Amino acid sequence: MAAEPSLTDGIIAAQFGRDGDDLLIGGVRAGDLAREFGTPLYAYDAGLIRRAYRGLADALSGFARIHYSIKANPNVEIVRLLLAEGAGVEIASLGEYRAARQAGADPGDILFAGPGKRRHELEEVVRDGIGEIHLESLEEIAALDAVAGAAARRVAVAIRINPVAEVQGGAMRMGGKPAPFGFDEEEADAVVDRISASARLDLTGVHLFAGTQILDAEVLATQWRHGLDVAGRIARRLGRPLHTVDLGGGLGIPYFQGDGALDLAALKAAVPALIAAKGADPFLRDAAVVVEPGRYLVGPSGIYLSSVIAAKVSRGQRFLVVDGGMHHHLAASGNLGMIVKRDYPVVAANRMDVAERQPASVVGPLCTPLDTLARKASLPLLSAGDLVAILQSGAYGVSASPVGFLSHDRPAEVLVDGGIARRIG
Amino acid sequence: MAAEPSLTDGIIAAQFGRDGDDLLIGGVRAGDLAREFGTPLYAYDAGLIRRAYRGLADALSGFARIHYSIKANPNVEIVRLLLAEGAGVEIASLGEYRAARQAGADPGDILFAGPGKRRHELEEVVRDGIGEIHLESLEEIAALDAVAGAAARRVAVAIRINPVAEVQGGAMRMGGKPAPFGFDEEEADAVVDRISASARLDLTGVHLFAGTQILDAEVLATQWRHGLDVAGRIARRLGRPLHTVDLGGGLGIPYFQGDGALDLAALKAAVPALIAAKGADPFLRDAAVVVEPGRYLVGPSGIYLSSVIAAKVSRGQRFLVVDGGMHHHLAASGNLGMIVKRDYPVVAANRMDVAERQPASVVGPLCTPLDTLARKASLPLLSAGDLVAILQSGAYGVSASPVGFLSHDRPAEVLVDGGIARRIG
Repeated sequence: MAAEPSLTDGIIAAQFGRDGDDLLIGGVRAGDLAREFGTPLYAYDAGLIRRAYRGLADALSGFARIHYSIKANPNVEIVRLLLAEGAGVEIASLGEYRAARQAGADPGDILFAGPGKRRHELEEVVRDGIGEIHLESLEEIAALDAVAGAAARRVAVAIRINPVAEVQGGAMRMGGKPAPFGFDEEEADAVVDRISASARLDLTGVHLFAGTQILDAEVLATQWRHGLDVAGRIARRLGRPLHTVDLGGGLGIPYFQGDGALDLAALKAAVPALIAAKGADPFLRDAAVVVEPGRYLVGPSGIYLSSVIAAKVSRGQRFLVVDGGMHHHLAASGNLGMIVKRDYPVVAANRMDVAERQPASVVGPLCTPLDTLARKASLPLLSAGDLVAILQSGAYGVSASPVGFLSHDRPAEVLVDGGIARRIG
Repeated sequence: MAAEPSLTDGIIAAQFGRDGDDLLIGGVRAGDLAREFGTPLYAYDAGLIRRAYRGLADALSGFARIHYSIKANPNVEIVRLLLAEGAGVEIASLGEYRAARQAGADPGDILFAGPGKRRHELEEVVRDGIGEIHLESLEEIAALDAVAGAAARRVAVAIRINPVAEVQGGAMRMGGKPAPFGFDEEEADAVVDRISASARLDLTGVHLFAGTQILDAEVLATQWRHGLDVAGRIARRLGRPLHTVDLGGGLGIPYFQGDGALDLAALKAAVPALIAAKGADPFLRDAAVVVEPGRYLVGPSGIYLSSVIAAKVSRGQRFLVVDGGMHHHLAASGNLGMIVKRDYPVVAANRMDVAERQPASVVGPLCTPLDTLARKASLPLLSAGDLVAILQSGAYGVSASPVGFLSHDRPAEVLVDGGIARRIG
């Protein structure tokens, strides 16, 4: 209806392509995936993951290394793919640590963040020689000190800092306000003293949180610049240069009509100033900077594909009941922290060439109105057996969904690489 | 602060009790459960489930039979417990069907509802001789007709009706408005004709949806009365008396300060009029009425117990980081369809006798502000190792939560019965 270009059309053109009526994923027809693996299923295009990684690595070249934030999609084959590209890993649980290790990550290339680490988690990663542990509470300092002592290990640690001043950007800004994460910058002296008092903890880094789902390169660069400033202040309190600065993730992808993709060229253009700022600070000059994206690397690669079971009209409104639902894709149903429920981009994966559209709501099998994947979406007139694909579904999909809700089967997860589709979950 | 009696105190007194500082679950100290099974864990008091079942069965005596809506908590031991009380079962997936069978349910005592039944699901339940299948779309009628034909079975079916007029009550009213569930009442003639044309489908019942989380007995009785009227109208269109009328669930439990418990005595007092109305209609007189509660039977029995990992103050606000979170209890985090996030009742399970309280937010380990179990709850000053219990957690708990989110372990599920606690999940 609007003159605005369709986000969905743009995503299809830039990421997937089509062959007549068929949506292509990594060159393979959605219908072929549905026939081979059954629906509902998640399909990921390996090429899109590599493209996202390489584009970002190029933009950040000379400034920061990428650690994949595994929480976005902990599938071992996806982690393996990113390791092969050269990524490090950022984890927030022992389960994620084990997934990273299973994928082949070296313990020294893994960072452990998260506000509630448990003792047995610390024990396993310390024993293996994890790269760096990001401390978030005084209790955690004491626990890690004890664990390191028992293991006769010296452990590299960073402190997560909740900065004084807030910088604009992202949906979940964390500076300036009370937060359960990390340490308030105001308390950094006491925290530095506490860690320095331990012979087993080697305070080498500072970790900051840039925000989440940031789509504006300028905002992101500003957050990072601010992060460097905060890290420099902490290093001065510490009295020696830092080895690592973790600027967090926060790189967004477009989900909703009106969202614009992050401008990588603009981000790349902002990097020389960041390199210069870092180089000008003797306390930061030799530090390795880390950026830890998750969603940005894997989100665009994935689709969630379901089959229409019934097409019905109730009192003038059209509903498509599909075999997938919120139990596999909580975020698309609008129940993963969204205040306003908006639709993910959705297409009829075997009717891509049908120009005529009608509004239809896409609902799942869960016996609750919450189980709605799209609200009056613009779709062709579909019927039983047709395929509906939710795009931008590679991050926070099945692993962030209540898979046991109503006791349906897990969806298959399929990786398409070089024109070959194989089941990976 | 308010003069209003505390919902939490009322729940403790009516459902749990305490021994000094310790919260009791079925007579067992929360701390003993934590030591034996580890935290986080779900604990269910078998006695409370029986009490809820018996109270409701008594109130509905002579009017309706109870089928447990297994989606509320599909743990096989809990289903088994309700079967032993005399309940039938209502399922909405093959997975739920198998859980019911594993618990010992007779196929003939199982009703299959839900908007998106798949062919292989229909095949298995038809083969076993399921009690009744509730049809929700024309596609489903055709599929079941084919499945019944292939199995050479005659299958008892009900139609779910989306009534014309809306009656007040419940958070999710379904009458009068467009709905993906069932058939609009306006179309019932065509649907009845379609089913009657099949030699294999025996249209025996009508299924209605009363609402959800209804706390007012009068509203509930009015909804049921309305349901009987609708069922009578459908029976007349069918031209013969019904065998079954399923009035749905909808019985609520109090979750939030200000919620009052459903008044069972008032509900019981309304039942004779319902019996009379049914008896006065020759098309309904001999029908078996079914009510299918889920939450009402199991919700009050359960607590979600977690341990404090860190207690911190950030810029004047107190946070308790616990080892449990939204990955185990999505509903308590406010991310399961709640528009306004309100706190479930929460207590310090090993500090019940401490009178002095301070506001503290209870957050989980998931690295996201969404992972908040309570917002500035009134709690004693807790520290690492203390226990936090979320009450009213027996329904839509772990089975309705994104257990894989951040790859933590599943919580233990423990049933306490006769003073004995045993692990059931």
